[in-house]
Amino acid sequence: MDKHTEKSVHGGDVYRNQVELDFSVNINPFGMPDGVKKALGDAIFLCTQYPDEKVSKLSEAMAKKLDVPQECILFGNGASELFVAIIHARKPKTVLVLAPSFSGYEHSAACEDCQVCYYYLKKEDNFELTEHFVQELIRQIKAHEAPDLIFLANPNNPTGVCISFDIISQIVFLCCEHRITLVIDECFIEFTKRQNESLIKTAIHSQYLIVVRAFTKIYGIPGVRLGYLAASEKMVECLKRQLPEWNVSLLAQYAGAAALQEDEFVQKTSEYVEKQREYLTEKLRLLGLTVWQGEADYLLFYSEKNLYEMLLKKKMLIRDCSNYKGLESGYYRIAVKKQEENDRLIDALEEVLSDENIK
Amino acid sequence: MDKHTEKSVHGGDVYRNQVELDFSVNINPFGMPDGVKKALGDAIFLCTQYPDEKVSKLSEAMAKKLDVPQECILFGNGASELFVAIIHARKPKTVLVLAPSFSGYEHSAACEDCQVCYYYLKKEDNFELTEHFVQELIRQIKAHEAPDLIFLANPNNPTGVCISFDIISQIVFLCCEHRITLVIDECFIEFTKRQNESLIKTAIHSQYLIVVRAFTKIYGIPGVRLGYLAASEKMVECLKRQLPEWNVSLLAQYAGAAALQEDEFVQKTSEYVEKQREYLTEKLRLLGLTVWQGEADYLLFYSEKNLYEMLLKKKMLIRDCSNYKGLESGYYRIAVKKQEENDRLIDALEEVLSDENIK
Repeated sequence: MDKHTEKSVHGGDVYRNQVELDFSVNINPFGMPDGVKKALGDAIFLCTQYPDEKVSKLSEAMAKKLDVPQECILFGNGASELFVAIIHARKPKTVLVLAPSFSGYEHSAACEDCQVCYYYLKKEDNFELTEHFVQELIRQIKAHEAPDLIFLANPNNPTGVCISFDIISQIVFLCCEHRITLVIDECFIEFTKRQNESLIKTAIHSQYLIVVRAFTKIYGIPGVRLGYLAASEKMVECLKRQLPEWNVSLLAQYAGAAALQEDEFVQKTSEYVEKQREYLTEKLRLLGLTVWQGEADYLLFYSEKNLYEMLLKKKMLIRDCSNYKGLESGYYRIAVKKQEENDRLIDALEEVLSDENIK
Repeated sequence: MDKHTEKSVHGGDVYRNQVELDFSVNINPFGMPDGVKKALGDAIFLCTQYPDEKVSKLSEAMAKKLDVPQECILFGNGASELFVAIIHARKPKTVLVLAPSFSGYEHSAACEDCQVCYYYLKKEDNFELTEHFVQELIRQIKAHEAPDLIFLANPNNPTGVCISFDIISQIVFLCCEHRITLVIDECFIEFTKRQNESLIKTAIHSQYLIVVRAFTKIYGIPGVRLGYLAASEKMVECLKRQLPEWNVSLLAQYAGAAALQEDEFVQKTSEYVEKQREYLTEKLRLLGLTVWQGEADYLLFYSEKNLYEMLLKKKMLIRDCSNYKGLESGYYRIAVKKQEENDRLIDALEEVLSDENIK
């Protein structure tokens, strides 16, 4: 495989591609807040100390922000560490994931050789989770075929589609009633208008519900690694035993504490992203592309042309979604970036799509 | 428990103690090399990218340095993450650890509820691992009572005592022959004169031997989190499956790459530490304290007086080793620091020990 066209299982692989504009990874278009940058700079000089193993200051600040007890929060070296810890702690025999959805759930499930089952979302339903999923879950429960653990992303990735409150609350109820561990990934929820639909407050009362979030996307710090989850105190205790000591670096703890001061930045981001998402959707549709109605900082669209390779030649990286289970060749995901960058992408797409020689 | 006298299971808990001089944690007395500091500063601005999931550049540099294939090296978010990954991958029913030794091995073993067995080192033997251990292992193997996994630290912590080559090579042979996973922790080996006795080169050929090391101590970056291991390619593949995606932060990857340029710093450190260790040993013995003959950047000694509390009043933190299995009240570990700091400790100890009222 050609080095410069090697496709990664994730977006953002700028290490094996020559890229000027990376639309393949869905982080905040404003990047990292200055306050976080400064905190990281200051923290470097403290790195001759071990990190606080108890992540005390950050946990305290987060508990206050979320209005939940500190004992119900657990920090990880990115959300990805927490997914793995959940699998190690629960050791589910069967894990249900949506298709398409984030491949990290399957990576985690592989740690314990879990059997992974897929529920296929339909493009005709705008890749939404519908009543059909609830009915299917009820059928499986009755037939003693229900999975031990379910991963759901709200909003889902790569579609950006949220789960309606009506559907998700039925799923939460069924899972708790039938002792199915339900992991809700809310890593992109800050980009949507559904922050008040978060299940964090419900999770702290339940033995079977875990809500996972990250600093990665909204604060633009994927390189730092910082995620967290909310669950019952008992569940947190159980998950903590699966984590290494000092798993959250001193740098991440300081970056996180600074990030929690950035409410205005988050507010500004979600407003800007909404406008740009609508703008991009309109532009893409004008180019004749099919665009799904996402609510996050990324968009899923379809084209019959090989846009990945063509844009890479222009040093723009988009996410080829053909390796997502439940999608096929022709599906692409792009991040919603700044207006100027979005315009450059649109221009490039226009060029590429108008070239009759390209298929 | 009084906040300022709360004892941690590890050294270095400056978060719950008021400390000016921390002798409880064993990092390089010179702290972090300037080159690493600079690399971290530069890397902050790259943190809006994901880390390279394959840790390619660092792995390549490390492979070259150690003269082993890149496929035989695995990086972790600190050595502690690798210990946990080993336990998750091997799922040993029984784990053998030395007493006293680093408590992190027990923390890892708890992830899979392994039964932990202890081999008690004797103070009369200078806490050395002797032929008796080999004989005991042979007896256990014959009686089908051998552990599934053994953790050994070389040098050991908190004693600083190394394992003689004669003993360790017998243990390696027995473990490989009888399919016992042997984990050798070489996190402090750079401070000793035994770098040429490292088992890294042996590990890459064996299905049962794993050597773990860290950047934490020798490069003075516990806050960054960076460790690695050497093992067979097959073992590395197997362990990798237990690790989260992007487990090594971008900051750690850049810090690590810069650290590998610091051969002179490492050389200077080991020479300085040797001199200061001898100096401190002599001074402590002159104060009437029993000091064990370690080879690392820390020293274990014994006193009947409550030195921990007394030194904490002087804002100096030492490691009270009474919670180490195999040790008891009266054992203390101190880091070998810079001459001036070591002198301050000696002065403080002299004061404390000469005060007749203190017990």
